Amino acid sequence: MSELHELAEFAVRLAEIASQEILPHFRTRPGVHNKAAQGHYDPVTAADRDAETAIRREIRRVYPQHGILGEEHGFEPGESAYTWVIDPIDGTRSFVLGQLHWGTLIGLNDGAKPVVGVMRQPYTGETFVGFGGSAELRRAGMAVKLAAHRTCTLDEVVLCATAPDMFGTSQRQEAFARVAARSRAVRYGGDCYTPCLVAAGCADLVIEASLKPWDIQALVPIVEGAGGVITDWSGGAADRADDFVIAANPELHRQALDALAWR
Amino acid sequence: MSELHELAEFAVRLAEIASQEILPHFRTRPGVHNKAAQGHYDPVTAADRDAETAIRREIRRVYPQHGILGEEHGFEPGESAYTWVIDPIDGTRSFVLGQLHWGTLIGLNDGAKPVVGVMRQPYTGETFVGFGGSAELRRAGMAVKLAAHRTCTLDEVVLCATAPDMFGTSQRQEAFARVAARSRAVRYGGDCYTPCLVAAGCADLVIEASLKPWDIQALVPIVEGAGGVITDWSGGAADRADDFVIAANPELHRQALDALAWR
Repeated sequence: MSELHELAEFAVRLAEIASQEILPHFRTRPGVHNKAAQGHYDPVTAADRDAETAIRREIRRVYPQHGILGEEHGFEPGESAYTWVIDPIDGTRSFVLGQLHWGTLIGLNDGAKPVVGVMRQPYTGETFVGFGGSAELRRAGMAVKLAAHRTCTLDEVVLCATAPDMFGTSQRQEAFARVAARSRAVRYGGDCYTPCLVAAGCADLVIEASLKPWDIQALVPIVEGAGGVITDWSGGAADRADDFVIAANPELHRQALDALAWR
Repeated sequence: MSELHELAEFAVRLAEIASQEILPHFRTRPGVHNKAAQGHYDPVTAADRDAETAIRREIRRVYPQHGILGEEHGFEPGESAYTWVIDPIDGTRSFVLGQLHWGTLIGLNDGAKPVVGVMRQPYTGETFVGFGGSAELRRAGMAVKLAAHRTCTLDEVVLCATAPDMFGTSQRQEAFARVAARSRAVRYGGDCYTPCLVAAGCADLVIEASLKPWDIQALVPIVEGAGGVITDWSGGAADRADDFVIAANPELHRQALDALAWR
């Protein structure tokens, strides 16, 4: 097993460890702490905090030289170039409602780019894994290689995003609306789940904004491993940005960036 | 077993029969026929059509005197007062994308009101069943009795709806916005799934419009069986309307109707 493969299997184990902390809280009407400023809603639960604590403990045990960047407990620098970039529950709003489009994101950045990505939804038992130019979905003891859709154009795809209020400025709203106007329809409510469905060849286009590194990094190896394209809104590296365009293939990605016309 | 209980178990079997037609198509990038007029998007798949055909065949075989009203194949009157009201896949847009918030809806109307309701999500193996003033969730051989949340007020709940473009007129958009302004946050992307989460005590408030009878009837016994409230936007019977307000308890429902101020 290559070093990268070993690190990927470790990432899967981290996600499984998180699942043990998260699932007992799912649909138990968890106590919700609103960590946003007045007038906003950014829920965090004991499941988020306990899962990230368990993930950090396991990384410290096995790779004490690696750095860790996580949503709930911040940045711990390491001595190696590797940094784990983790979101214990991406889609906490969905989680709190008992919905299904949420998951644990585990990314590994080698100092230059994300090289391993895992998204695990423990209730459905799905684990999406990407590394080394390949991606797969594991469920119920089976693994299926993922391939994004090769031929689809903007006018025939459904544009996906998590929420209409995620775009912040009116300039961003207008840019998103330009892509929406050229696509077949818009569908909201996806979080980390829909990008993985682009990798799986089901969804085709996801555009999001107001993101943090832990919302993005794990998705890069999954999307790219399946042949999809992920960049920021300007076409630069998504893992250094706070927004992304995820498309099933380069031609669709080019059409989406053209319509977005961002800077 | 009472007659109603027998009919409820039959409804569960109908949903399971539908699952056998639907699951082989899930995430296979199904051929999508757009049945809406120019400029709209109303996808229907072979999974929808085949599932409804299989459901109708089983009803004809066991209860040939019952009527059937279904999304894909219309109304077949019966000689009895009972009519099955079915939507083989509620949330086809979600289904086509490979997402999870969709399901088979099986309702039974006794001529006056819906008396049995089933929502089944075959990929997650969840079956929500309501009849006789009680509701439960069945999964993996276990059944859990459902109870909606007794104490929550509008300012502390997340308002759920399927999509911001479902409200048609600007009057409806403004009415929805009035409720949204008084709630904590809005979450899109639910279809039939989120109403069942109100029954499960996780979600609290769902407001939708532009609905058909097969989008509503099965949900009534599930929501009411768990102690929740479902009416149309004016407070009348939801099963005779094309919109609904689903709330976890009567006080929240009253607050939502007051904010909606519909007619």
